[in-house]
Amino acid sequence: MSIPRVYGMSSSGNCYKVRLLMEQLQLEYEWIELDVRTGVTRQPEFLSKNPNGRVPTLEYEPGRYLVESDAILVYLAEGSGFWPQHRLERAQALQWMFFEQYSHEPYIAVARFICAMLPAQHARRGELPRLHERGYQALAVMEQHLAHGRFFVGDAYSIADIALYAYTHAAGDGGFDLQRFPAVRAWIARVESQPRFVQMPPA
Amino acid sequence: MSIPRVYGMSSSGNCYKVRLLMEQLQLEYEWIELDVRTGVTRQPEFLSKNPNGRVPTLEYEPGRYLVESDAILVYLAEGSGFWPQHRLERAQALQWMFFEQYSHEPYIAVARFICAMLPAQHARRGELPRLHERGYQALAVMEQHLAHGRFFVGDAYSIADIALYAYTHAAGDGGFDLQRFPAVRAWIARVESQPRFVQMPPA
Repeated sequence: MSIPRVYGMSSSGNCYKVRLLMEQLQLEYEWIELDVRTGVTRQPEFLSKNPNGRVPTLEYEPGRYLVESDAILVYLAEGSGFWPQHRLERAQALQWMFFEQYSHEPYIAVARFICAMLPAQHARRGELPRLHERGYQALAVMEQHLAHGRFFVGDAYSIADIALYAYTHAAGDGGFDLQRFPAVRAWIARVESQPRFVQMPPA
Repeated sequence: MSIPRVYGMSSSGNCYKVRLLMEQLQLEYEWIELDVRTGVTRQPEFLSKNPNGRVPTLEYEPGRYLVESDAILVYLAEGSGFWPQHRLERAQALQWMFFEQYSHEPYIAVARFICAMLPAQHARRGELPRLHERGYQALAVMEQHLAHGRFFVGDAYSIADIALYAYTHAAGDGGFDLQRFPAVRAWIARVESQPRFVQMPPA
């Protein structure tokens, strides 16, 4: 078995998800750091690995690639305690991962990118009111769910928690106030107390 | 066993995915038609089923709900020929389903909504140039992949094809020209020739 390679930007929440799970599974891996702001993921060499030009990209065998952060999480987690054993709970984990990519990341991660990674007076700041409105809707859905449970699926930490933790805990970087969401904050603390937890580097 | 209920809008691609799979699996189901444009999915009665206020919503047992179209597809398809048997192929199916929800649906489905479901001079038509740019990028990624395969995963029709077919075949409704994508068009014809295929109603 060759050691898998992860092409990623360490400060990206989508890339951090993969690193956190690999650390918690105690997998060996090689991390290839790419700064997407340089355009490197739009160059032909990278597009030959992922035609959609995004990180993280997992090279699970030399020359064979898997992309989309949450699909990589499922691939790595199958057979471990991070992926539920029961059919309904697997579907619930996927439900929260699709929620994350459709209703959460496009607002909470993008607000963080604009606030923390672009120059202070960048024109994209005009997008922030809409991003905050939609991002707060996502946080409210999470708050309601977590009022009745310690984790997102069943009563166990899973890759659904990893997927949602990545950008939620850093929502303040994008101007969100998490003080309004006590159940979300308590869940963040529970995630951070898991064995072999590693922090995400700052933006 | 009670008969599952699907709350959905028939002309929505996300809802159609669930109907198509249920027909192909020959499952019994009850369809509850909702027109999201009336605001019904933002009313308290519906939010008690899905706090995120979206369709499709599957009531798999009375009072128990599963949401997110692609998570519902996995739940229904597990154990059938529509869900791959091998770990890597399951991850590849999920990769394409996350691609669909993140890099495809927000452009191709939204352009269709604006062109086919809003009044002709609606202000949101100003979004179309960006939606077309991003949607064409997604179609180009699909074209490249389908140049080397009959379906998205392995050589078999799966829920990855159902997820991507829903809005791709109707991309013309949003002003996309599929003539540029011969491999995509050939794949559309292969999907439509599958046993128990049913068409999506017009927008």
